[in-house]
This record gives sequence, structure tokens and C-alpha cells, in this order.
Amino acid sequence: MEVARYLFARLHDLGVRSLFGTPGDYNLVALDFLEDAGLRWVGNSNELNAGYAADGYGRIKGIAALITVFGVGELSAINAIAGAYAERSPVVHIVGTPSTSFQSSGLCLHHSLGNGDFRVFANMYTQITVAHTNLSDITTVASEIDRVLKACVHESRPVYIELPTDMVSQTIPTSEAMSNGTLIQSNGTLHAHWFEDSVVDIIREKITSAQRPFIIVDGLVRAYDIEGEVNAIVRSSNIPTSTTPAGKSMISEQAPNVCRLYKGTAGDPEYSAYIKTRDLLIYFAPLWSDCNTFGFSTIHKDSTTIVFHQDAVTIRGKEFRIQVKSLLQKLLESMSDWKCQVQVSAQCLMPDVPTPDVVQGPESQEPIKQSAFWRLCSQVLTSGDVVLTECGTSSIGAYDLVLPEDVRMVTSALWLSIGFMLGAAQGSALAIRDLVDEGIGAAGRTILFTGDGSLQMSVQAISDIIRNRLDMIIIIINNDGYTIERHIHGMYAQYNDVQPWRYLEAPNFFGANLDDPTYPITLRKGTTWGDIIQAFEDPAVRSGKGLIMIEVVMAKEDAPETLKNLFK
Amino acid sequence: MEVARYLFARLHDLGVRSLFGTPGDYNLVALDFLEDAGLRWVGNSNELNAGYAADGYGRIKGIAALITVFGVGELSAINAIAGAYAERSPVVHIVGTPSTSFQSSGLCLHHSLGNGDFRVFANMYTQITVAHTNLSDITTVASEIDRVLKACVHESRPVYIELPTDMVSQTIPTSEAMSNGTLIQSNGTLHAHWFEDSVVDIIREKITSAQRPFIIVDGLVRAYDIEGEVNAIVRSSNIPTSTTPAGKSMISEQAPNVCRLYKGTAGDPEYSAYIKTRDLLIYFAPLWSDCNTFGFSTIHKDSTTIVFHQDAVTIRGKEFRIQVKSLLQKLLESMSDWKCQVQVSAQCLMPDVPTPDVVQGPESQEPIKQSAFWRLCSQVLTSGDVVLTECGTSSIGAYDLVLPEDVRMVTSALWLSIGFMLGAAQGSALAIRDLVDEGIGAAGRTILFTGDGSLQMSVQAISDIIRNRLDMIIIIINNDGYTIERHIHGMYAQYNDVQPWRYLEAPNFFGANLDDPTYPITLRKGTTWGDIIQAFEDPAVRSGKGLIMIEVVMAKEDAPETLKNLFK
Repeated sequence: MEVARYLFARLHDLGVRSLFGTPGDYNLVALDFLEDAGLRWVGNSNELNAGYAADGYGRIKGIAALITVFGVGELSAINAIAGAYAERSPVVHIVGTPSTSFQSSGLCLHHSLGNGDFRVFANMYTQITVAHTNLSDITTVASEIDRVLKACVHESRPVYIELPTDMVSQTIPTSEAMSNGTLIQSNGTLHAHWFEDSVVDIIREKITSAQRPFIIVDGLVRAYDIEGEVNAIVRSSNIPTSTTPAGKSMISEQAPNVCRLYKGTAGDPEYSAYIKTRDLLIYFAPLWSDCNTFGFSTIHKDSTTIVFHQDAVTIRGKEFRIQVKSLLQKLLESMSDWKCQVQVSAQCLMPDVPTPDVVQGPESQEPIKQSAFWRLCSQVLTSGDVVLTECGTSSIGAYDLVLPEDVRMVTSALWLSIGFMLGAAQGSALAIRDLVDEGIGAAGRTILFTGDGSLQMSVQAISDIIRNRLDMIIIIINNDGYTIERHIHGMYAQYNDVQPWRYLEAPNFFGANLDDPTYPITLRKGTTWGDIIQAFEDPAVRSGKGLIMIEVVMAKEDAPETLKNLFK
Repeated sequence: MEVARYLFARLHDLGVRSLFGTPGDYNLVALDFLEDAGLRWVGNSNELNAGYAADGYGRIKGIAALITVFGVGELSAINAIAGAYAERSPVVHIVGTPSTSFQSSGLCLHHSLGNGDFRVFANMYTQITVAHTNLSDITTVASEIDRVLKACVHESRPVYIELPTDMVSQTIPTSEAMSNGTLIQSNGTLHAHWFEDSVVDIIREKITSAQRPFIIVDGLVRAYDIEGEVNAIVRSSNIPTSTTPAGKSMISEQAPNVCRLYKGTAGDPEYSAYIKTRDLLIYFAPLWSDCNTFGFSTIHKDSTTIVFHQDAVTIRGKEFRIQVKSLLQKLLESMSDWKCQVQVSAQCLMPDVPTPDVVQGPESQEPIKQSAFWRLCSQVLTSGDVVLTECGTSSIGAYDLVLPEDVRMVTSALWLSIGFMLGAAQGSALAIRDLVDEGIGAAGRTILFTGDGSLQMSVQAISDIIRNRLDMIIIIINNDGYTIERHIHGMYAQYNDVQPWRYLEAPNFFGANLDDPTYPITLRKGTTWGDIIQAFEDPAVRSGKGLIMIEVVMAKEDAPETLKNLFK
């Protein structure tokens, strides 16, 4: 079996069905092996978008892969891979490199720096990937591929594979190819059962003896693969529960004990006061970045907390090294007969405090305001949707969405690379379709909320969406520039302006067939509440079929209350 | 004087008039200092294009600067900076970083990897910049800025400056700010005059005693700042002279002793045979990459060569460490009375061998062919033009352009990042305008030749062009995919296809006012010779004013003969 064949087969084994990337002379021959392996070629317009898309695909499907060329290609994608590392998305980055003999000769090859050093870019990537390999030795190729793929899945973080052109079609020795059994094996528990049992006992005692426990579910729940366990604990324990921005959608917001998002000092002071008086805070899989914690204000003092990380739990400041998934399963069993009796205060429940800018009917000529827009959007969501919210007013506004059952959100709460969400939406929509094709997942709509400044960064991804005939609703908040930056500094500074595009011309520019009933293009623009209500009621929009773009015009100074609070 | 004020003033001293980049929370306050310093904010749509544009600006104006934010911004631009390093463009990359106190606390800040390590990205940049500094110590800020800026100009390569948010507005102690005199001082000669004189003697002896000398002028002539000296030597010596792809336009192609481009094994065998029989090859500032040497076939054996590098000259294989600019000035003086008597064989002269696909008149309905297209383009060029040729059929086809006097080309012959040239064209056009505004340069047209696949990579740069009201002619070779890749591997493979865009819709999509006479938009599409001839004869096109886009449709299999030869 050839090297490329083996690599793609292993990716297929793990669930990869589409390969993101761009072609280049150092990877062309490898691409010939895609079809046999059952992988679809996505063919992105550029590498950054390929990387973003892979991240989005990985978050939905559990693994993703992209291929670029050495030097120019991999550096164009490096921001995306760093983001996948920071926010824990399982992405396999394959780099087509010059032949091993050319590399060892130190030739002045194109796409290199010209100094004979072929390790520069690989060295950069060691900082932002959890495993890396150079497939330059045929006797270890298969085990090396398996090693890095395991790391990718286990750590839910990117890995890096160099594939020299002369290795692509080399045949792996049978002994090497066959020596690898099941690709993904459990890491095993880190400790003996008696240790796990005793930690469970301590945690159970702390929880059941607490008078006012409270749970905060965070975004790394996905990466740690503990969504099922956490949801079961929240449901069966009846403990009042909130989420962070990154944790939103990780638990059902329809459960009676689930409260609105906890915004610390940027949120409702009464709600914060309520949480501050809890005698036990339980954090699941925290991502304690400044943005995800509203300036670290939602991190409570050690003495009142139990914190579940991937390989450790910290109980009132004392750390126990232990694997979280197994621990939570035991905890769930041991607490199946206990229920928290605390009544959740009404003010904590969904939705967030009402706002004055009430949305009216389809005839309304009133301008659209951030304060009420997100509440209106809540009504548009339905079960099965995947919702992506770009950094800026979109992500912050979406904190106040009330999600129906089984809505998955893709957010960014640490890396915050604007432009990411459009690419990620392309990948997420493809992941959904690939899951449906496999008979695993249900077809759901992909809904992206983004801003004008963000869209400009990575706009080619719309071409990728059209080329791959992906179903998507793109809601563009057109507020004439970088509104989040305006609130940080320079409200009317020229540097916070952007070139005003004709956003709804995108499908035409990117070559969509505007009259193809099998891939419909639906375009709506709204400057008033009436426009938006009519758009949201349009069956062509609601269907989520084809490419739907809705441009929502809002004032450049307007922002969700939470954003204003953050930077006032 | 505040840190940002000092930094921008120093950039202005060196000739920077426009700052490329995108705003972000870690650099916003610094941007407030731009206006006072006399710098224009370009406001690019994304960071990669900002980096590409800075590279293009630096190649024309001798220095350029861009600003991004920490993490997300700088990584999006890193491919462009690596390219500037490889191909020696003087770019100052300023990165707005978190405050020094936040960094030293190791906080989990947005745009970081979340691991408390704020050195990761700066460490990556050490590999692709010639000097770097972190402006974290107020007592050394001014000297550090001066140190890295000097390196940028002297080495004609990128440098990296970290500007923490809390340092931006701090006041530099007067003693520090005043201690720096002239920013750019000569490096001085590396050797005593007697040494230089003796090297000049050796070179002169080799040249005057040669029976059949030949000069090859290469692209690093620009970076070494020896264009004037090399041109004078070519002109006064009358030695037959050719260029490499990267060297094209570095010498006047109108001189009687200037031959067509030397393509080694990819070119005319008779012309190669002629050069192979020369008894002395003189290389000025070679860039000996695979692409620039046609697979290393234009590099002749040491025993017949004199090679001028930046800080060394190699005479028949023996290296002398010496500064090239001073050496060439002395050589020129010492040889002013000598002229080579060799008659250049007619077959070596411009233009290249005629091709059968003759262009006919404006009525021609014949399809456009690569073989004759570039000859037609030669007729369109006029003195003062800046011509940029994107990698692929554009760069290779343009080898056969015959350039009028005083036409400057911007090419890529090592890094070859597709998408680069559109961004670089934005920067080049701005550099030309800035020079005109300063009363230094003459207004010339900016003409970009690019391909469909390349344009897609960085298409937002068209928005930047429109936003900055830059004059430019963009000629898009629309040949339905990555034609150069097709010739390398996979002529009809799906992975070499791209989404077919409606390219001429770009100005409309990117928000241009299509009816503004002060910034005209001119759009032409050609599928026949007649179409293209008519377009080229249109005064609106010839003027080069406003944004002119010409889409030239050619068959996807068609390629310049040189390209076919390279990969056959």
C-alpha cells in the first residue's frame, strides 16, 4: 500500500470524508489518491479559509484534515491551525514538501526561504500542534501516521504531517502496514479504580452537602468529549446551571434548572450577586480566557469551587490527576438518586432581561437595534440548527439567544480571529452533509452570524460554499466597520472604517447560478424591523436550503448591552 | 516624545508615507499617532494582503511598514513576511501586543494560545526577519527602533517590532530620543582601499582578457542597491547581456547589447549553446533558485564565472569578502575606457523567436493564444510603467515581453506565493503615488498580469485598491483553473479546477462607484484577438487611470512555450 493511500485510508477510518486545501506542485500527486480513499476534494480558494473550514469541520465531526504545500501554503494556513490549537479542534494538517533528496541537498527551491533550511516552517508548527511527523522513512511511515492521528483525536488539537513528494507513492512494507491494529485506543485511566472511587466520594460529599451549588458549563466540554456526561449530571442533579460564552449550547437550555449566561461584571449585577452567594461552584471544562470570563470576573475563588479539567479535577484548590470522562461516569452513577432542592430564582432564567427596543410586526419601519435583534433571532432557530457566531457584535449579541433543544453553536472565545467563522461555517455545513450522507446525523441548517469587517477578511469562503453547493444561511450585520473596535477605542476613527461592499452581490460575483432551482440563492436586505421580520418569515429563508444571505443594516455605534458594559 | 510618535517619525524619515494593516484592540491607540506623523492609513481588508502590499511598496519605495495585532493578525501576515525575507523586500512589521504587565502575568488573553506564552509568535518571526525587538523598556526604545530600521534598509529584508499597548504612549527620555543622529549610516566598506583596488584589478584583467564575455543581471540587484552601477557597466562595456526572470527590467532592454532572457534548458537551444560557449560569465546579484535558473541550468561552472553577491565577489571560484556597491563603482571608473568588441548574434536579440499564432486586427475572431499574447502586450507597455506578473502563465509568459526604457517589473522567482501579486500591485501603485506626492517620482501606470486561481487567493486586495482610489490595470488571464499545475501534474484533474467567478463584477461587489468620473472603472472582457486589441486601443484603458480590469479568456491547456518546455 502506498503512503498516500495509507494516510487517506486512516483518515477515512477516523471519519474524515472531505479534504480541505489547495493544490500545489508539492502535493499534486498525493491528491490522485483521494478518490480511491473515498474522500471528497473541497478545493478552497485559499489556505487560510481551508484551515478555518477544517477547524469548523473538526468541531462538528470530531476530526478534519487539510492539505497545503510547503512554505507558502502552510504559512497562509498557520493562523487557522494556531486557532485550532488554542480552541482545541482536531485538525490534521498535511503538508506536501519537496523530495527528501532535494531537501537533504539544501537546494534553493521555490517556496523555501532560499537558505537550504527546510525545517523552518515545521519548527514553527511544533508550537501549535500536539504531534508532528515527517514521513521520510518508509519503514516507520504507518506507525508515525497512526501516532499523530491518535494524538489529534485524543487531545482534540491539530497535528502536522510532512509528506515529501518522493514518498507519496512509495510502498509501505507489509509488516509495517499490518502491525497497527485499532487506530484509536483508549488512553486508559490514569489511576487505579480505588483512586477514582475515592475522588468520586470526595466530590459527591462536597456537592450533596452544599446548600447553594451552581454549575458552570464551559466550551472545552466538546474537546474533552464529556458532553453526554455533563448534560446527564445537569439534568439529574437539578443543580442550577449556567454557561460561559464558549459553553453555550453544550447543555440544553430548555431544562428547568438552566439559567441564562453568566456574564460576570459585564452582566446583570443582581444575577452576578446571586451566583456570588453560591457556596459551591462546579466548573466543567473551563476555558478561562479574558473574553470567556468577562475579564476573569466569572472565576470564583478556589475555596468554593470544584473544577473539572481534562486530566485533573481541582477540589477547593487541591488538584487530583485523573481522567475526567471516566470520573464523570462514576460520579453520575454514584449520584443518580440525589437531586438538588434549590429553586432557581426567576431572574436567572432565560431569556435575559427584556429590552425596550421592542420588535414590531412586518410593517415596522423602525431601524433595527442590537438590543432586540438577538431576541428576534431566537425565534428563528429550530432544533438541529448549527449556529456560528463571529467575534464582535455577533458573538456577544448571541449570548442572549435562547436555544431550542439540540442546537449546536460554534463559537470562539480565546483565539478570536475575525474571518474565522465564515470559513468555519463552510466546514461545519460540509460536516453536517457528510454526517447525513453516512446516515449518522440529521440534516440541520447552518446559520452564520457575522459582521461586515469580518466577512471581508475571508470572503472567498462564499465561493467555496457555492462550489460545494452547501446549504447555509449567512446573516451579515452591516454596521459600517469594526463596531467592537469602535467601542474599545476610536468610535469615529477612520481606522475603524471598512470599504462599503455590496454584500448581496457575492453569489453573483462568485459565480453562482442564480436561477438553479436545485441550489437556490436567496438574498434579503433589511434596514427596518419589518424587512427582517419578512425575511425571517420567507419560506425560502426558513428552509435553509441553498445559499441564503441576509444583510442586516444597523447603526455603527450600536452594540449589544453586554459589549457596551465590557468596554465602558 | 511618545514611543508611537517616535516610531512613526522614524519611518517617515526613511520614506514611509503609508501604513498597511488592519486595526485590532492591541494596536488601536498606536494608530492615533499616524496622522501627526504624516502617515496615511491604508486599512487593508485582511492581514495577508496588507503584508503583500507592504512587500510591493517596499520594492518600489525602498521601505514599507505594516501593523497587525498579536497572534491572529501577525500569523495571517506571516506568509507575506516570509516572502519578503526570501525575496529581499524591506518591510517593517509592527505588532501591537498585550501590555507588558499582562504578558509577564502569563494571563490567558485573547489572541494568545492560552498557555501564558507570549513569545511563540515572536519566536516564529525570528526565522523570517533580520532584526527584531520588543519595545518593552522605555530606556532603550529609541535605539532599538533605530537598530532594527537600519537592518531593514541595509539588508533589504523584513524586521519585526513588538509594541505593547502600555508602551505606546509612554514618553521616551530626552537623552535617549536625542542620542540618535542620522538614522541610516553607511555600513562602511568592509575592507581597506588597497584590498578593493586589488580586487578591481583582478576583475578588470579577467574581463578585458576574455574573448567572449557575457553578463547575466539578476533580481537581487534591487535589494543590493546596485541598479545604477550595473546599468552603467552594461552600457559602457558593451558586453552582451541577458537577465534572469527576476532580473528582468533591472537593465534597459533598449540597449544594443542586451539580449533576450536566458532560459537555460527551457529556452531556445541555439541561444543556450551561444551562452555556453562564452569564456566568461559575469553574474550580478544572482538569485539561484530552481525557478529563476530553469532548474539550475543557467548556473555555469565556477571556472568561467565572476559572481557579484552583496558582500562578496567570487572570481573563478575564489571568494573575496567585499562590499559590492563600492566595488562596482571602482570597477566602473577603472574600465571607463574599455569596450567589448563582440558582436551580439542576431538570434540573441529581442524579441524572442516569432511564433505562429499571429495576432491580427481588431476584427479578428480567433481565440487568444499564450504564444502570441505576450508579444501583443509588449506593444501596450510605455515608459514609466510598473509591471507585475503573478506566478504561473503570467510570470512565465512575461519573460518574452520587450520592455521600453524605464519600465520596472515586480516579479517573484523564489517564494512564488500565488495571490501575492495582486496585493503587491496595491502596494506598488500606492508607492508610485506617494513618490509623486513627494515630487520624487514620475506618475506611471501600474499593470498587473494575474491568473484566475491567483486572483481568488487574495481578491480582497481589489477592495483595498478601490478604497485607496489607486490607478491600476489588472489583466486577468482566465484559463479556468491552475494552468501551471495542470502542466506539472493532472491536466484534467478536478483538483486543478477553480470555481468560475464573474471577475469583472469585482468593482461592483467591492463597492466602487461605477459612475464616478474622478475614479473611473473600466471593464473589458476578451475571448478573441479582436476583443483584446480593441480593449488595448481604448483610451480609457491606455490612460491607466482609475481601476481597469481586462479579463482575457484562454484555453485551460494553453501555456507559454517556456512553461511547456519546463515540465515536458
